[in-house]
Amino acid sequence: MAQTFGFQVQGRDGKARTGVITTPRGEIRTPAFMPVGTAATVKAMLPESVRATGADILLGNTYHLMLRPTAERIDRLGGLHRFMNWERPILTDSGGFQVMSLSALRKMSEEGVRFKSHIDGSEHFLSPERSMEIQRLLGSDIVMCFDECPALPAPEEVVAKSMRMSMRWAQRSRDAFGDRPGHALFGIQQGGVTQELRAESAEALVQIGFDGYAVGGLAVGEGQEAMFGVLDYAPGMLPEDKPRYLMGVGKPDDIVGAVQRGIDMMDCVLPSRSGRTGQAFTRRGVVNIKNARHMDDPRPLDEDCTCPACRGYSRAYLHHVFRAGEIISSMLLTWHNLHYFQELMAGLRGAIAEGRLDAFVAQFHARRAEGDIEPL
Amino acid sequence: MAQTFGFQVQGRDGKARTGVITTPRGEIRTPAFMPVGTAATVKAMLPESVRATGADILLGNTYHLMLRPTAERIDRLGGLHRFMNWERPILTDSGGFQVMSLSALRKMSEEGVRFKSHIDGSEHFLSPERSMEIQRLLGSDIVMCFDECPALPAPEEVVAKSMRMSMRWAQRSRDAFGDRPGHALFGIQQGGVTQELRAESAEALVQIGFDGYAVGGLAVGEGQEAMFGVLDYAPGMLPEDKPRYLMGVGKPDDIVGAVQRGIDMMDCVLPSRSGRTGQAFTRRGVVNIKNARHMDDPRPLDEDCTCPACRGYSRAYLHHVFRAGEIISSMLLTWHNLHYFQELMAGLRGAIAEGRLDAFVAQFHARRAEGDIEPL
Repeated sequence: MAQTFGFQVQGRDGKARTGVITTPRGEIRTPAFMPVGTAATVKAMLPESVRATGADILLGNTYHLMLRPTAERIDRLGGLHRFMNWERPILTDSGGFQVMSLSALRKMSEEGVRFKSHIDGSEHFLSPERSMEIQRLLGSDIVMCFDECPALPAPEEVVAKSMRMSMRWAQRSRDAFGDRPGHALFGIQQGGVTQELRAESAEALVQIGFDGYAVGGLAVGEGQEAMFGVLDYAPGMLPEDKPRYLMGVGKPDDIVGAVQRGIDMMDCVLPSRSGRTGQAFTRRGVVNIKNARHMDDPRPLDEDCTCPACRGYSRAYLHHVFRAGEIISSMLLTWHNLHYFQELMAGLRGAIAEGRLDAFVAQFHARRAEGDIEPL
Repeated sequence: MAQTFGFQVQGRDGKARTGVITTPRGEIRTPAFMPVGTAATVKAMLPESVRATGADILLGNTYHLMLRPTAERIDRLGGLHRFMNWERPILTDSGGFQVMSLSALRKMSEEGVRFKSHIDGSEHFLSPERSMEIQRLLGSDIVMCFDECPALPAPEEVVAKSMRMSMRWAQRSRDAFGDRPGHALFGIQQGGVTQELRAESAEALVQIGFDGYAVGGLAVGEGQEAMFGVLDYAPGMLPEDKPRYLMGVGKPDDIVGAVQRGIDMMDCVLPSRSGRTGQAFTRRGVVNIKNARHMDDPRPLDEDCTCPACRGYSRAYLHHVFRAGEIISSMLLTWHNLHYFQELMAGLRGAIAEGRLDAFVAQFHARRAEGDIEPL
């Protein structure tokens, strides 16, 4: 195992790259999709099953964990890896995004954000310094700067003002993080959909210096076209030799488009959340398992898929257990979705390494255009 | 694999027996505990995990399956084994007990029971003949006679009248079941807590002739002392060379007492249901994982247990995920409980085979008397 954090690009195809991030807890093959383990669990999955889908790294949510069971408790219990029984790398977000989306009665200042817990109404404070402390207590391998971002669309001056505060917070995050060999700190580019602001943000981050760089502030309501518009230039503003992470993305076609534009890492709750609501991702599109057309269908979700849900169960069974509200429905559909996402990433990595990304992407879209297999 | 249904007693210790039931779908080591897979799933478990706990056979509920997804649909899809991805033996109950406990607006006659579904209010009819048909459509390996039983305590004349109708229904079940090589039909002894009625029922069943015999009508409110009182004589009224099945039992000490009294098979929702409500069974008693005393406890539920929940997770983690309402809480606690129950059965089988059941039972009770390990 590497004793320090590192990143090697091993292959390129157009703007897309494939490579490996090395950490003391294991390698992360890129482009990488990180399943989200919000409250110290990828919902409805055992960690060994998450690993079996091909995941090299999980994402943990600082906001949720600081409220329950608390970072101090996780630290006393030996850190987040031991706590949740996942010994491979973990990336934690800074808590900033979820304070904005989940908490009540928040009050933001240059210093940080004061807010009330959505669980019990208790009062808490997050700042760059406190976020770094929490992520250190959790034992996170990849720590994210504490930042702030407005929902889009937003007036340019709002986006600019917010970005500049995030850059000051990035410096404070860097200072508070200190020197922690084997652990990485990532900066987060902001600037909405305005190229000049993205450039200003990238310059500020590179000036400070980070182990990796996230494209932040996207997937917040701007739509895929606007997101791809930003991704046409934003990754190129960030250092070539560091991983580039697109936060909170996305749907399979978002992922493919982002990888084509030079993104190395992504995360999203979509595969696990959809699993619980009866949506399954397949090469031919989305299957809504609750639909009555699956009631008598003996076929698996996807005949070419090797996940446990597809190897062992019919659509009829998955329909039945979803309708009956059985936990196994969430377990099997989540497993299938995570398997699908990881298989997509493996396909992208192989295609980039072999210089056939365009053909891979063309086939990806062609299969989806066929639509889901028709019912019997 | 055996092509026919059979039972061999391989060891005895007092009234207790250990042996093996052979079926075309595999062997069932006795005494056996059957996890309950009500709606074609043992809740919160994948079937391979149920098998990994040591289960040789599952129980399926005719009442639930006939209503959703329906026996006819399961038959079209290849039977219950394929449907739920469990290729080993399945025992199905007759539906009678749950019609009484779950359905609304039921109307019973000599012919059978008309009732409305608790799911959608639709009207259905169950009789010995229809129950046999449903269990055949499901593909059940061990089919139970359709019977009826009053909740206890009940006046003796009510119990006697009900028992005699159940015996007439047993004959009709036998006639309707016909000759199905490799599949077994079990009769169910009734008679409440009255020895003369139990004797009359046993005699009627033996007269008809079955592949196995259940002690029915217990665990319906009479308490452990009264249940053991019946078990002191009831199993001895049933043929020595056939399996004896105590339906719906029970707690670990119920199981131990029943095995001591000559019972070979049992089933209960307790380990899976308790798993979902945060109760874990251990050698030293029950752990209520929701209690605040577990919040900082780094130890597993049971330090001697080898199940995935105990190998991978602290009480603190299990407490956290239970409090947070995470699905993994049900998954891990159910797995632990099923593992505990199967390990108890394996211990009982070994002790009987080696003629040391009394010592095993004494140690079982002594450990429980120690109580759960104290918190840190």
